[in-house]
Amino acid sequence: MKHNFGAGPCILPQEVFKQASEAVINFNDTGLSILEISHRSKEFEAVVAETESLIRDLLSVPQNYSILLLQGGARQQFAMAPMNLLKEGGKSAYLDTGSWASYAIKEAKNFGSVEVVASGKENNYTIIPKDYTIPTDVDYFHYTSNNTIFGTELFDIPNSPVPLVCDMSSDIMSRKIDVSKFGLIYAGAQKNIGPAGLTIVIVNNDLLGKTGRTIPSVFDYQSHINAKSMFNTPPVFSIYVAMLNLRWLRLKGGIEEIERENIVKSRTLYEEIDRNPLFRGPSAVEDRSRMNVTFVMENPELESEFLALAQKRDLVALKGHRSVGGFRASLYNALPISSVHLLVDVMQEFEENHK
Amino acid sequence: MKHNFGAGPCILPQEVFKQASEAVINFNDTGLSILEISHRSKEFEAVVAETESLIRDLLSVPQNYSILLLQGGARQQFAMAPMNLLKEGGKSAYLDTGSWASYAIKEAKNFGSVEVVASGKENNYTIIPKDYTIPTDVDYFHYTSNNTIFGTELFDIPNSPVPLVCDMSSDIMSRKIDVSKFGLIYAGAQKNIGPAGLTIVIVNNDLLGKTGRTIPSVFDYQSHINAKSMFNTPPVFSIYVAMLNLRWLRLKGGIEEIERENIVKSRTLYEEIDRNPLFRGPSAVEDRSRMNVTFVMENPELESEFLALAQKRDLVALKGHRSVGGFRASLYNALPISSVHLLVDVMQEFEENHK
Ligand SMILES: Cc1ncc(COP(=O)(O)O)c(C=O)c1O
Ligand SMILES: Cc1ncc(COP(=O)(O)O)c(C=O)c1O
Ligand SMILES: [Mg+2]
Ligand SMILES: [Mg+2]
Ligand SMILES: [Mg+2]
Ligand SMILES: [Mg+2]
Repeated sequence: MKHNFGAGPCILPQEVFKQASEAVINFNDTGLSILEISHRSKEFEAVVAETESLIRDLLSVPQNYSILLLQGGARQQFAMAPMNLLKEGGKSAYLDTGSWASYAIKEAKNFGSVEVVASGKENNYTIIPKDYTIPTDVDYFHYTSNNTIFGTELFDIPNSPVPLVCDMSSDIMSRKIDVSKFGLIYAGAQKNIGPAGLTIVIVNNDLLGKTGRTIPSVFDYQSHINAKSMFNTPPVFSIYVAMLNLRWLRLKGGIEEIERENIVKSRTLYEEIDRNPLFRGPSAVEDRSRMNVTFVMENPELESEFLALAQKRDLVALKGHRSVGGFRASLYNALPISSVHLLVDVMQEFEENHK
Repeated sequence: MKHNFGAGPCILPQEVFKQASEAVINFNDTGLSILEISHRSKEFEAVVAETESLIRDLLSVPQNYSILLLQGGARQQFAMAPMNLLKEGGKSAYLDTGSWASYAIKEAKNFGSVEVVASGKENNYTIIPKDYTIPTDVDYFHYTSNNTIFGTELFDIPNSPVPLVCDMSSDIMSRKIDVSKFGLIYAGAQKNIGPAGLTIVIVNNDLLGKTGRTIPSVFDYQSHINAKSMFNTPPVFSIYVAMLNLRWLRLKGGIEEIERENIVKSRTLYEEIDRNPLFRGPSAVEDRSRMNVTFVMENPELESEFLALAQKRDLVALKGHRSVGGFRASLYNALPISSVHLLVDVMQEFEENHK
C-alpha cells in the first residue's frame, strides 16, 4: 500500500475508490455506467441533491446561501468572484499570503481596482500578515484560508466591514468554519471534497445582481443557481465521487471528528520536525498549516537521499512544490494517521543513519 | 445489457468502462488510484500528451493548431470563443440552426455585435438554412455542425471569407473533417470523446492575440496553450477516459471506419422510420443527423406506449428532448449496430401490435 502525501489531486478514502470503481461498471443497479447516464436522469439529479445537502449539513450552510457544483477550478473563481461581486468601476481588497493569493489578485485586476492590504511576500510567505486594515469602501475582501504551496493557514476569520470572499481550496471540510461570516466561499474539489474537475461555490444570495456589469451567462452565479447546477452538463463523475467522499466524512463523525484527527496528525508531524535535528519547518509556528506541512533539511544536500528512502518505504509525493523546494506532506482528511506515523518513523530512521 | 440511446453523457465502449473502473483502483500499476495521482506526475503528463496526440492523429490536426483539454463545457466556449476572437468593437456572424446555436448567439452578444446570417427557427429548426452570405467584415463565422436536440447536421463545410468557428460537440470524431478549414473548433467531450467534465478546443494559433481586449488569464486560450492544458488542475479522470476511448477508436480503424459504421447505423434507422407507417422523421431528409435521429409518431397518443415497450426491451433514453417531444435515438460512435437492429425490431413489433 502506498502512502499518498500529494497536495491535490490527493488521496481519498479507499472505500470511496472501491464504490467509484464499481459505479463505473454499474451505477446504482441501473445496468449503466455512471459515465454514460444522463445528467438529467432522476438518478443523477438525486446525486446532485445529496451532494448539495451533504455540503449544507457538514458546514451548516445557512438557507440564504446557494451551493453550486461547477467546473473550471479555483482559478476560474479568481475571475468569477470579481465578475459577480465587484461593481462596475468598483474596488476590492485582497490579502496576499502566497502564490494562489497573488494569482487571484492578478486576475481580479482585470475587473476593477485591487488594494492589497498586506503581503507575506517579503517574508517568502512563511508568515501570514496580521497587521492590516480592511477598507470600508471596497466591494469585498478576499483571502486564502490555506496556502497549499507555502504551508501556512489562516485560522481566525478576519473581522471585516465588507463581505468576505475566501479561497478555501485546500482546507475546506478540514475544520469548523462559520459560513455565515462569508459572502462567498469557493474551492477546487481536488483536496478534501473529491477528484479534480469539480469546483464548489457557496454564496450568499443577497450579494448577487448588484455589480451593474454584464456578466456572460455561463459566468453568472445566478444562472447556475437558477439551473440548480445544471446550467450546462455538470462533471457527473466528479460530483458522484464527491458525494461518496462526503458520505464517508459524515459517517465518520463529520467536521468535528475530522478536525480532531487533523489536529493530531499535523501535531504529530510538526513535533517530529521540531525534535529531529535534521529537519526544520520554515513557516511561522502560529501560522502552520494542518493540511500542508512544509519542511526542509538543515543540510539540503541530504534531501534527495531522504526522498529516496521515503520512496522505498512507499511514502509518495513528498517533494515540495517546485517554487519552494524541500518537502511537503499534505495531510488531507483521507490520509490515515498511520501514514503520518510511518513518515515519522522514516524521519527517525534517517536520523539514525546519519548519526 | 442495456442499449443506451442517450444524447450525452452517452454510451462509451464497454472495454473503456472496464479499463476506467480498474484505473480507479490501480492506475498504470502505480498502486494509486487515477483519482489521487498528481496532475503533474510523469504518468499523468503522459496521459495528456497521448490524448492530445490521438486527437491530432485521428483528425489530422495541422501542426499550427493547438489542442486544449479544458473544463466548463461547450457553453463556456460560447463565451470564450468571442472573448478570444472577436475584436474590441468588432462584429461576428452566426448561423442559427437550433437551441445550442441560439444560446451561442445570445452569449456572443455580451462581447460585440452579432449578425445572424440565417435562422431555421421559423421552420422549427427542421431545416438547415443554406441560402445566406457570410459578411466579409466580421471577425469570424460561427455554426453548429450537429444540432443535438433537433436532429439535423451540416455536412458541407461552408465556404467562408472569414475564419470558421464551429461547435462540434455532438458530431466530432464521427466523420472526416478538414480541420485546416477552421479557425476554431470546440466540443464538450460527453458524446464521442469521453465522459462529461472535459471540453476540447482546437485552435489555429495564428488567430490569437489580435482582439485588443483584455482577456482574464483563465479564459485566454494562450494561457492554456502555454501551460499545455495545465494552466490549472485539469479534469484528470475525464481526460484519462477520453484517452482510453480514443485509443479504442484508433484501434477500430479511426474516423474512416467509424464514419462507415455511422452511415450504416443511421441509414438503418431512418429507413425503418420512413417505411414504418406509425413513425415519421421531422427533419429535412438532406439535413438528417447521423448522430441524433429524431422521430415522432403519426399518432402522438401512442408515444408513451412505444416508450414503455422500448424500456421493456432494455432500450433506454429514447425520449426526445423536452423542448421537442417525440423520440431521439442518439447513435454515437460507441453504440453498436446491434442496438439499432433491436430498436428497429421493436418498432416493427409495435407496428404488428397495432395492426
Ligand atoms: C489554495 C488554492 N487555490 C487555488 C488553486 C488552484 O486550483 P485549480 O487548479 O483548481 O484552479 C489551488 C490548487 O492547488 C490551491 O491550492
Ligand atoms: C451541440 C451542442 N452544443 C453545446 C452543448 C452544451 O454543452 P455543455 O453542456 O457541455 O455546455 C451541447 C450539449 O449537449 C450540444 O449538444
Ligand atoms: Mg500558496
Ligand atoms: Mg528540527
Ligand atoms: Mg440543437
Ligand atoms: Mg414512416
